[in-house]
Amino acid sequence: MKKHNFNAGPCILPEVALQNTAKAVVDLDGIGLSLLTISHRSKEFQAIMDETVALWKELLNIPEGYHVLFLGGGASLQFCMAPFNLMNKKVAFLETGVWAKKAIKEAKFFGETAVVASSADKNFTYIPKGYKIPTDVDYFHITTNNTIYGTEIHEDIDSPVNLVADMSSDIMSRPIDVSKYAMIYGGAQKNVGPSGVTFIIVRDDILGKVDRPIPTMLDYRTHIDKGSMFNTPPCGSIYTMRETLKWFKSMGGLEKIHEMNKKKAKLIYDEIDRNKMFVGTAVKEDRSLMNICFVMDEKYKEKEAAFLEFATKAGMVGVKGHRSVGGFRASVYNAHPIESAQALVDCMKEFEKQNA
Amino acid sequence: MKKHNFNAGPCILPEVALQNTAKAVVDLDGIGLSLLTISHRSKEFQAIMDETVALWKELLNIPEGYHVLFLGGGASLQFCMAPFNLMNKKVAFLETGVWAKKAIKEAKFFGETAVVASSADKNFTYIPKGYKIPTDVDYFHITTNNTIYGTEIHEDIDSPVNLVADMSSDIMSRPIDVSKYAMIYGGAQKNVGPSGVTFIIVRDDILGKVDRPIPTMLDYRTHIDKGSMFNTPPCGSIYTMRETLKWFKSMGGLEKIHEMNKKKAKLIYDEIDRNKMFVGTAVKEDRSLMNICFVMDEKYKEKEAAFLEFATKAGMVGVKGHRSVGGFRASVYNAHPIESAQALVDCMKEFEKQNA
Repeated sequence: MKKHNFNAGPCILPEVALQNTAKAVVDLDGIGLSLLTISHRSKEFQAIMDETVALWKELLNIPEGYHVLFLGGGASLQFCMAPFNLMNKKVAFLETGVWAKKAIKEAKFFGETAVVASSADKNFTYIPKGYKIPTDVDYFHITTNNTIYGTEIHEDIDSPVNLVADMSSDIMSRPIDVSKYAMIYGGAQKNVGPSGVTFIIVRDDILGKVDRPIPTMLDYRTHIDKGSMFNTPPCGSIYTMRETLKWFKSMGGLEKIHEMNKKKAKLIYDEIDRNKMFVGTAVKEDRSLMNICFVMDEKYKEKEAAFLEFATKAGMVGVKGHRSVGGFRASVYNAHPIESAQALVDCMKEFEKQNA
Repeated sequence: MKKHNFNAGPCILPEVALQNTAKAVVDLDGIGLSLLTISHRSKEFQAIMDETVALWKELLNIPEGYHVLFLGGGASLQFCMAPFNLMNKKVAFLETGVWAKKAIKEAKFFGETAVVASSADKNFTYIPKGYKIPTDVDYFHITTNNTIYGTEIHEDIDSPVNLVADMSSDIMSRPIDVSKYAMIYGGAQKNVGPSGVTFIIVRDDILGKVDRPIPTMLDYRTHIDKGSMFNTPPCGSIYTMRETLKWFKSMGGLEKIHEMNKKKAKLIYDEIDRNKMFVGTAVKEDRSLMNICFVMDEKYKEKEAAFLEFATKAGMVGVKGHRSVGGFRASVYNAHPIESAQALVDCMKEFEKQNA
C-alpha cells in the first residue's frame, strides 16, 4: 500500500533526491567509489559542496556579504552558538513555542533575555503582533514556523536591530528577503534535506563583535574561513540536500514551491473548516503552510483514536499530533505531493460519512 | 577498473553496509518509506538506535557505568566539549600530532594545559614513552592513532588520573579495555561509519564535577538523559554505522578484525622495508595499523610524482601523503580488503622493477 508521509521531521523528501542518494551511496557518478567513502577533500566532494552552496544562494537570492554554512549538531546547537557569537548583553525574543523557549534558555547562559511578546497564554496557537522590538538589544530572535503548534510568520519582519531567525521548519517554503535578516539557521531535516546537517546563513559584519573567547568549533568565523570544511562535514546529508535543492530548482524555484505549498495547505485547511468532526487549533491568519494542526470537535472527542486508526489503515503516516497539542498534525513540507494531501482529505470525508 | 580505496577518512566501509544503506534510503525494511524520511521518534528508528548502541557495547565489551552517545559536530567539537564538561583547572596531554595539538588548543579556553610528552621534535614520527602522568590534573588526554603521521598507541595505557582518548582513527581496530578509560570519543568516519556522526563512550561518574554552567547541547548529561535523542540525531549516518558494526560482528568481532588488520598492515610494511625505493616514516614499534606512511628513498626523490601517477593508473585512490609528511599514505581501516593491500604491494614491486 502506498504510504502518505506526513512526518513532522525527518520527513518526506523528493523521490528523485532519495533515488539519487541511493545510487551515489553505491557508486558516485560512476567513479567506482561510494559517496560515503570518498575524502571530503576530494575534487568530487568539493564540487558537491560548492554546488550546494550555489543552490542556496540562487534559490534564496542571497545577497553579497552573507555566508552559507553547513554544520553538524542541529538547530539546538545553534541555540547556544548564536549567543556565543553574537550576544554581548541582551537579546530579545518572540516566544512562539517550545523551540523559541529553548533558544531563550540557552541565551540565558550568556546574558539577559527579554521576551517582547509571547503567545504562551493560548498554548502558542497564534503569532503575537503589535509588539515593539527594543533597540537596546544585540539581536531580535524569532522562530518563523512553529512545528508543534502549526503557526507561522508569513512575512519577513522589519527589525530595527539584527534579526536572527530559526527557520528550521519553513526554510525554502517561500521566497524570503534575506537582507532583512542578520542570520538564519535551522536543521535541514524538514524542507531541505535529511537529518545530520544544519544550515546557517550569516551576514559577516555581525561577527567579531563580542569579547568572550569562542572555542574554535563554536566560532562561525572558523567555518566561514574553511568553507564548512574546517573538519569533516556530514557529506552524505549534504549530498541529499543538494539533490533536494536541485528538485526545487527543477520545479521552478521558491515562487512555484510557495504556490504549491499554499494549494496543498488550503486543501486540508478547507476540509478541516468544512468537516463537522474536526477543528483547527491555530488562529486562521497564522496557520502554518507546513504543519497543519487539528483536533476532533468537542462532540466527537472519543473518536480521536478511531480516526488515527482509520487514517493509518488508509496509508497515512505521522498524523498523530504532538503531545503538547494533541489531536492530529499533517506536515506538508515542500516535497509533500498534493495527492497525499488529497488522500488525507478523502480520509477525513469518509470518516465523517461513517461517524458523524 | 576496480578502485582500491586508501582514503584517510571518510574512507572505505564494508560493501554490505553501503548496499544496505542504499536499499534503506529507498525503502527501509519494506515499510514503504525511506530511512531518511521517517521520524527519529518512530519505532523503526528507535530500534536502529538501540541496536547500534547494543553493538557498540557488545563489540567493545563496554562495562556497566558507561554510556554510548552519538552526536553531531565531529571529534573537533569534542575538543571543546570534553574540557567544557570535565576540566576544572588543568588537563595533561600527550602531544602526538596535529589532532592532539588541536585538542590542547581548545582546552586552553577552559584552564591550564600541560604537555607531559611530545614527539614534535621529530615531526611526530614516534609515540613518546617513559613519561610520567601528573596526578594534579583533571584528566590525561591521548590521541591513540595519528592519521597524518602513521603512529599508534598499541596498548591501553594505565593512567593514575581519568584517561580521555580521541580514538577517531583506530576505534574498533582492536579489542580494548574500556575500563581503563574515563571517556573515548571520535568521528565515525574512519573505521565505524560515514561522516556526520561522532561517538562518545563516557563513564558517568566523571560528569557533574565542574562548576561552570554548560549550555544544554554541550552537556553530555543532556544526551545521556535522552539516549542521544535530545534533538534529531544524524539518522542516516547512524544507520550506516549499525550496518558497519554488524559486519564487524559477522567477521568474528574485534579479535578477528585485529588479526586481519595486523596481516594487512604487515603486508605493506614488509614491502616498504624490502623495496629499495621506499622508506617508512614512523618508528617501527609505533607504526599504525591504520595509516601506513612512507616516502621515496632519498635516492629516488624525483620519482614521487611518477609513483603517484603509476599507482593511480593501477586503481589506487587516496595514497597521496598528507602535506605535513609528504610522500604516501595507505589507510587500511577495518573494511579495507587484503586484496587492495596486495594490489598496492604489487604496484610498489612493479614500480621498483621499472625504475630502481
